[in-house]
Amino acid sequence: MRKVILVLGLLALSTAGALGADPPSVLLLIADDLGRDLGCYGNRDVKTPHLDALAAHGTRFDLAFATVASCSPSRSVMFTGQYNHTNGQYGLAHAEHNFQQLGRVRSLPALLKPAGYHTGIIGKEHVVPRSVYPWDHVEAQVPGGPRDVASLADRAAAFLEKVKGQPFLLVVGYVDPHRAAKGFANDREYSRVQSVKYDPAGLRVPFFLPDQPEVRADLADYYQSVARLDQGVGLMLAELKKAGRDQDTIVIFLSDNGIPFPGAKTTLYDPGVHLPLIISSPRQSRRGVVSQAMASWIDITPTILDAAGVKPPALPGRSLLPILDDPNPPGWDRVYLSHTFHEVTMYYPIRGVRTRQYKYLWNLAHELPFVPASDLYNSPTYQGILRRGDDKLGERSFKAYLQRPREELYDLGKDPKELNNLADDPEHAAILAELRQAVRQFQKDTIDPWRVRQEY
Amino acid sequence: MRKVILVLGLLALSTAGALGADPPSVLLLIADDLGRDLGCYGNRDVKTPHLDALAAHGTRFDLAFATVASCSPSRSVMFTGQYNHTNGQYGLAHAEHNFQQLGRVRSLPALLKPAGYHTGIIGKEHVVPRSVYPWDHVEAQVPGGPRDVASLADRAAAFLEKVKGQPFLLVVGYVDPHRAAKGFANDREYSRVQSVKYDPAGLRVPFFLPDQPEVRADLADYYQSVARLDQGVGLMLAELKKAGRDQDTIVIFLSDNGIPFPGAKTTLYDPGVHLPLIISSPRQSRRGVVSQAMASWIDITPTILDAAGVKPPALPGRSLLPILDDPNPPGWDRVYLSHTFHEVTMYYPIRGVRTRQYKYLWNLAHELPFVPASDLYNSPTYQGILRRGDDKLGERSFKAYLQRPREELYDLGKDPKELNNLADDPEHAAILAELRQAVRQFQKDTIDPWRVRQEY
Repeated sequence: MRKVILVLGLLALSTAGALGADPPSVLLLIADDLGRDLGCYGNRDVKTPHLDALAAHGTRFDLAFATVASCSPSRSVMFTGQYNHTNGQYGLAHAEHNFQQLGRVRSLPALLKPAGYHTGIIGKEHVVPRSVYPWDHVEAQVPGGPRDVASLADRAAAFLEKVKGQPFLLVVGYVDPHRAAKGFANDREYSRVQSVKYDPAGLRVPFFLPDQPEVRADLADYYQSVARLDQGVGLMLAELKKAGRDQDTIVIFLSDNGIPFPGAKTTLYDPGVHLPLIISSPRQSRRGVVSQAMASWIDITPTILDAAGVKPPALPGRSLLPILDDPNPPGWDRVYLSHTFHEVTMYYPIRGVRTRQYKYLWNLAHELPFVPASDLYNSPTYQGILRRGDDKLGERSFKAYLQRPREELYDLGKDPKELNNLADDPEHAAILAELRQAVRQFQKDTIDPWRVRQEY
Repeated sequence: MRKVILVLGLLALSTAGALGADPPSVLLLIADDLGRDLGCYGNRDVKTPHLDALAAHGTRFDLAFATVASCSPSRSVMFTGQYNHTNGQYGLAHAEHNFQQLGRVRSLPALLKPAGYHTGIIGKEHVVPRSVYPWDHVEAQVPGGPRDVASLADRAAAFLEKVKGQPFLLVVGYVDPHRAAKGFANDREYSRVQSVKYDPAGLRVPFFLPDQPEVRADLADYYQSVARLDQGVGLMLAELKKAGRDQDTIVIFLSDNGIPFPGAKTTLYDPGVHLPLIISSPRQSRRGVVSQAMASWIDITPTILDAAGVKPPALPGRSLLPILDDPNPPGWDRVYLSHTFHEVTMYYPIRGVRTRQYKYLWNLAHELPFVPASDLYNSPTYQGILRRGDDKLGERSFKAYLQRPREELYDLGKDPKELNNLADDPEHAAILAELRQAVRQFQKDTIDPWRVRQEY
């Protein structure tokens, strides 16, 4: 694997020059708990015209994956180019969870500073410590609150005014469509944003959720939050254009993890990690590309460093810039997965790999029950499941979801819903052994503290 | 429990005046991985004349307990007066473990500053972050290295010179008798310290270890490190006297956790948490007191604040100063225990309570095997156990040690070795229920993040 990384590192270096003389700026837009619920990703219920337009103007990755389905860990991967088991952000950063990255970690703001980039973050950050994140500009609170997407666009406009003539990295951390204390914070109006309501009865319920009235209502509430996010992105891109920076700025849009429902967020099943990723570069030669490359959030930092012409440190990911124009680039055929904690009380280390055809997961603490995140546990959806005593979570056995085997292997070609575990199937022993070995090697290569677990 | 705390808080306040006009200083000496292996604690093999003399001059607590048997967590309890599940130091602070205390925590150096105390730490600290620990003086490295106990005494002398005429808290963090990269770092000579060698064949092997040659050799090595520590304490107390501060300084000697052997360190069995505690105050009226009070490391911060006449914040512990002269003070009859992590990969939350007669332990993640600390795993003792395939760990079943039940209840009166779990014994149902309830209440009172674990 090391050799592969080295070779690809050299390839990545060679692309910086191809982008032109002036290094482009980067606008990184991060949605919170958004699944592939955009019109351009085939969701026929939700309306997301602005994100669909961004995809039509750039490259939409159809096989893009977070490495972990938890907020702080996933963002730490985007911002450092290291798996979160390497950078130390093993779980959530806030409150009593209190996880933090190792002092030696070098993040995007630190790596971009020597290249003359002005770096800023507006809205949700959720990674620590500050010493690892020397942003030039941090604006965690915006007028109107974190759901006021027009306010986020206003603050971004002020940032763009400040960095006139300079290359920049601006991260905008949306809070939509994360759950709020009550529902999805749809109980008020937001300035310059239309409240888009959905009819629960008309929605399609994902396969991993029960088709129950409160689930439909919960989904309608979630979609309304997605529509607000979409409008916010529209306002944001309008500000970029108004500032005259749309022709020298690469826009990257993605989500930290899957939807805030059981079966998705905090799991390494596809609904947790198979997410939207749209990149639109002013310098790409084709528009409306739908890429079948398997991209990972581990590639985000190398991509941004490549844009800036910064020679990256030794990182496991690769720049996506060289493949923006190619719907089927060779050599992008697997992604690695690593989850350890969400909340500090929710120890559930999993290491895995997903290829085009298979997913292998190693549940290191499979003896423990899988505990849902507090926000999911308190949701109408989950409480309904408990109240009724459901034995299924949609099409999945609830019991199998809570108490998992040591290893899981899914043939995604035949079983995209990951319902039929083939880890004990003799006919799949060879692929199981191959992927198990790949995950062990991945752990060694990325200095995973969980690479050794004494077995008795 | 809250009411009890309040009342006792008031009592504690009232004692400060009784100590005299000038607040006394405090010298807190912390041994690393030392069990009750001192002559004064009845160990007939090891020679510890200096610590025995300290006990003869002050009060030796015969029932003193750490709340957790892991280095950083245990020290965080001493220094903050909060259980480590409250202060955030859930596990080790260093390297990839990277646990840290919550930013809002107020530690001894912060609490003593307004009272005009000069605070310092020399040697091992092992708690973070620095913002929580605003020591006036930090000296992690000393000439000769951390085992050079004469050098530690020299550096303490320099500190005492600096704080002439001022009240102080000086913490000295010894590294003896922790394991070293090789044995117990006895492969060199140390200045002004006699190398005290022990004959492995003549030693008594603790009940929780197998009587094997390499265990005896390992113990002899450990005892040699204990003897170095003892001589270091002797040199330290000589410096205190030389500086003329012995008559206004309370000396506290204790250990962070039990011996670095399986069955002790990182467990909440008595060999892990039942430890030496010696307090010698120039103002106590009786000498050579052997106290039967059940003291806890949760009491160390309240004790030091009491000495300084600082009104303590709401803390669960109590000052030990009012009971120094009393071998049998009433109302000191139980201690609470809380372990969560040692290394970050070693998730094993346990909550418990120990009374004079019983110990109750709740193993929250009992489904997992109990994983030994790396230094224990790599020790000659442990490797011998694995090599022979022992089914016993001394008198304990090795299997029962590795795979524990949800709850454990021991009648220490009849079973001080904690070998016979009574949690399923109908005759002990009432005491089990009472102690279980006490632990649940303890978790609530101390804002334990693990107070809620959803069960299905």
